[in-house]
Amino acid sequence: MIRNRIPDVVVRRLVEYLRLLKELPCGDKDFISSAELGNLCSVNGAQVRKDLALFGEFGKQGVGYPVQSLVGELTRIIGADREMGVAVFGVGEMGTALVRFLAARKRHDPDYKFVVKALFDKDERKIGSHLEGLTVTDLPAAAKASQIEGISIGIVTVPASAAQEVLDLATAWGIRGFLNFAPMKLRVARGIRVYNADVTLQLQELAFYL
Amino acid sequence: MIRNRIPDVVVRRLVEYLRLLKELPCGDKDFISSAELGNLCSVNGAQVRKDLALFGEFGKQGVGYPVQSLVGELTRIIGADREMGVAVFGVGEMGTALVRFLAARKRHDPDYKFVVKALFDKDERKIGSHLEGLTVTDLPAAAKASQIEGISIGIVTVPASAAQEVLDLATAWGIRGFLNFAPMKLRVARGIRVYNADVTLQLQELAFYL
Repeated sequence: MIRNRIPDVVVRRLVEYLRLLKELPCGDKDFISSAELGNLCSVNGAQVRKDLALFGEFGKQGVGYPVQSLVGELTRIIGADREMGVAVFGVGEMGTALVRFLAARKRHDPDYKFVVKALFDKDERKIGSHLEGLTVTDLPAAAKASQIEGISIGIVTVPASAAQEVLDLATAWGIRGFLNFAPMKLRVARGIRVYNADVTLQLQELAFYL
Repeated sequence: MIRNRIPDVVVRRLVEYLRLLKELPCGDKDFISSAELGNLCSVNGAQVRKDLALFGEFGKQGVGYPVQSLVGELTRIIGADREMGVAVFGVGEMGTALVRFLAARKRHDPDYKFVVKALFDKDERKIGSHLEGLTVTDLPAAAKASQIEGISIGIVTVPASAAQEVLDLATAWGIRGFLNFAPMKLRVARGIRVYNADVTLQLQELAFYL
């Protein structure tokens, strides 16, 4: 199975299944049916079974899925069992808020896998300043530094006008996944994933139902 | 057609179609085929036709959809043609960053429909302070005030421990749509929409492909 062939709506559901299963007050021996799990996240049981069957046989006919073990499997499938280094590009208000949020999550849960490891900004007043134990670095300087090691995700919070340049640079460094908070579409090469996190899109989805 | 029956994956695609169409360098008389539009957002043409057909007949067989008019129709369908008042609950770093982001979007584009109209926080050091022309108000005070008028969306950026209480209060005021940035699931009554904006979920979706 080639991961890139799995549609992102399926991935979105897997993440949602995991989140909901983790919130269930469950013991070691508890099972959940596909219908129950589907009900928790507003999809039908057949869809749940189909999604999970892409990755293996996790349930028993007539019994359901063992909750604890499914949590483990989903964590592994999603890749949330590996630590993922994150670089934040643009340490303005949004960038700072996200860095603090992720640091707080890590303090709260030592198993939290997304760890901010580098901060970049072009603003001379920010370069050299500290945030959550990290030093803000100038962008070009980083290219020759070893700071990029172990970083797999870039969070882009620079202004829209600078976002493409930053993305091009970061992909040249080998970063392949991005959360883009800039309100614009970024052109990317094949094999690079950009997740659009512009809050406008989320507000529009809400607006539809209101 | 009952809006609540439209699955959110469809709505997500409609929002994506609109975003991509708006970015096309198109004249008044340009058409786009369902295959071309699908290609832009990685779904197949049949899916595009099916999604749009839920709301009417917008295209011509063998010609495609008139781009400008489809933008107008999608804007109307999504409800992005109406101004939507937004209240921000929790004016910490994330809340402040979002308020400034939305205000900047509105300055940049006077047609931008999401307008922050009220700011709430429980912290006495924040109450009475100003941000983007608005005054931060204490939560309980707001219940009797007229500030809630015209607000349809709540953005929740309070700590996880306070999120449920805030949501319960805001739904009692009549707010029916929420973006939740707190890392926890909120219990809501029927007819209330909560969109989970916790950045962890977006990072997990990315992690799957990396």
